[in-house]
Amino acid sequence: MTVAYQLEEAGTRLSRSTIERRPLGPRDVRLDLKFCGICHSDLVAASDKLGGGMFPMVPGHEMVGTVSEMGAAVQGVSVGDTVGVGCIADSCRSCHSCDTGDEHYCETGFTLSFNSKDREGRVNYGGYASDYVVDYDYLVPIPAGADLARMAPLLCGGITVYTPLKRFNVGPGTTLCVLGMGGLGHLAIQFASAMGARVIVASRSEAKRADATRLGAEVAIDPDSEDLQAWMGQVDLILDTISNPHDLNRWFSLLRRGGKLCLVGVPTDQLEVFPALIVFGDRALEGSLIGGIADTREMMQFAHSHGLGAEIELIQPDEIETAWHRLHEGDVQYRFVIDLESLADS
Amino acid sequence: MTVAYQLEEAGTRLSRSTIERRPLGPRDVRLDLKFCGICHSDLVAASDKLGGGMFPMVPGHEMVGTVSEMGAAVQGVSVGDTVGVGCIADSCRSCHSCDTGDEHYCETGFTLSFNSKDREGRVNYGGYASDYVVDYDYLVPIPAGADLARMAPLLCGGITVYTPLKRFNVGPGTTLCVLGMGGLGHLAIQFASAMGARVIVASRSEAKRADATRLGAEVAIDPDSEDLQAWMGQVDLILDTISNPHDLNRWFSLLRRGGKLCLVGVPTDQLEVFPALIVFGDRALEGSLIGGIADTREMMQFAHSHGLGAEIELIQPDEIETAWHRLHEGDVQYRFVIDLESLADS
Repeated sequence: MTVAYQLEEAGTRLSRSTIERRPLGPRDVRLDLKFCGICHSDLVAASDKLGGGMFPMVPGHEMVGTVSEMGAAVQGVSVGDTVGVGCIADSCRSCHSCDTGDEHYCETGFTLSFNSKDREGRVNYGGYASDYVVDYDYLVPIPAGADLARMAPLLCGGITVYTPLKRFNVGPGTTLCVLGMGGLGHLAIQFASAMGARVIVASRSEAKRADATRLGAEVAIDPDSEDLQAWMGQVDLILDTISNPHDLNRWFSLLRRGGKLCLVGVPTDQLEVFPALIVFGDRALEGSLIGGIADTREMMQFAHSHGLGAEIELIQPDEIETAWHRLHEGDVQYRFVIDLESLADS
Repeated sequence: MTVAYQLEEAGTRLSRSTIERRPLGPRDVRLDLKFCGICHSDLVAASDKLGGGMFPMVPGHEMVGTVSEMGAAVQGVSVGDTVGVGCIADSCRSCHSCDTGDEHYCETGFTLSFNSKDREGRVNYGGYASDYVVDYDYLVPIPAGADLARMAPLLCGGITVYTPLKRFNVGPGTTLCVLGMGGLGHLAIQFASAMGARVIVASRSEAKRADATRLGAEVAIDPDSEDLQAWMGQVDLILDTISNPHDLNRWFSLLRRGGKLCLVGVPTDQLEVFPALIVFGDRALEGSLIGGIADTREMMQFAHSHGLGAEIELIQPDEIETAWHRLHEGDVQYRFVIDLESLADS
């Protein structure tokens, strides 16, 4: 019996209850969950603003746990191993996207780790729970000695920023501007800095600017100050992690010719674009969605070898509602992680 | 003395008058102009909607003429040669963009062939005139035997669509969708088709759909019909030539994963973008601005060797006002070209 926190319907409160996981298949492992990060997209799914919500819903897709049980066909994993599961719980494994390590763009649609149907049509419950069952192909090994609670948010937040940094060749000689100093932004600073890039951050909060430089940013700027002017035309890539409606046009001018503004947050409202800024500046508006399993494993190793991790507020399961409310208000430094240990005893 | 059609101020009518060209420098050639295309950006400049307009203004940047006079340092050109001049009349020739054939992104700003200041600060008058003076580096040879009036619009309209087709590797195996069946769109169909791509066109006009297939489109679709559904996720590149405000979001879904929507028209209003279409679909909004001199020369040769050219309505200079009005209303098949021969006799 799995203890889980679930919503009966869109917009209702989370309640503690029990759910049944699918029977362990030959390729499945069962994880005793230790930690689960709280991602902004948990709130979006729970609100059902984008539609398609499957209720009752157990959110959570940044899970770390230990393997407690394995199907007969599972390979390369042992009981007791510490592993993670991110957004992707399954995919077709035979389309071009799956073949090239982009399971998140599986042409038949990938199975999310919650709010999604598995290949047999059963609704997937997420990681705000005592255990999880998943095909072993979608496990992400957690390096020995890692701080597990700080690693949990990398499974969605980390890979979401790592993928575009890799894709757009961020490294020595490139200048990155990070918009939004939250769960995604504070990870982007750390990754890009470890990759050798110059990182600039724009934030109105003096405290967040101080954190940004502590985390590796070369410069942290108040976007309302004149200091922004010095960076016009200097930036190769803007990573826009803001999930609220915001003005894009003021940022395009930071980009050099050929520079890209990449959305990784997904505001649910329209954004306005002034065409002249794109056409006359030879700029592009790009988007990037999480990342594939191989890249997630690579990202986890990269983070551990550079001593990176999320800055977290660790909470107990009965504090999730409060944490959601604070996250909705942007009041978190910088990621909530749920300590799930207590659920195992109940 | 040069006969020219000029506007005294933004939004006024064109009047016939005389202007003085700069004295012929050692690198300059004088062209006796034969034809000049009318481009939508002439109207934008004349309205001064984007600001920075320099009045009095002589519009025109799709000029074809014959060399009548040359400075002492001019090489590779002879009196009597037929040549064209497009949007670019000068640039610094030493920055990275100029060095790599992208004079239109000259880091010091390029000199447009009208509504622009030359390197010595003198305002440039355009090609609605009897002659033109330009540095020989910016000439585009017109192949022998070409229909000069049909080639004139290639100097801006042609290169504007050729550049992104080349940049995004349009050719055999790629599917292009052209939005906007006007001056740019009808050229994009011809170029992409000659490059070996599948071309689809969306137009509400039955007559334009018939023209689209005549010009090389495989399919011409009424965007309000169900036929559009069959193309969802099938398109590699959308070339958006529409210069009026329009809905982008309905088109993103035509793109396959990784596909790009490239703006070549420049609406002066904001366009709205729904972030989920970009992020979840791995799509990008790109822009492309005209093209460099080497590419313009290449495009002209390509067009001639494939028998391409603009479909034009040839007008006399005293019909420019009427043509502008009709162009503003979208009533042109497909490019107005001014026959300037009569100005030489006046």
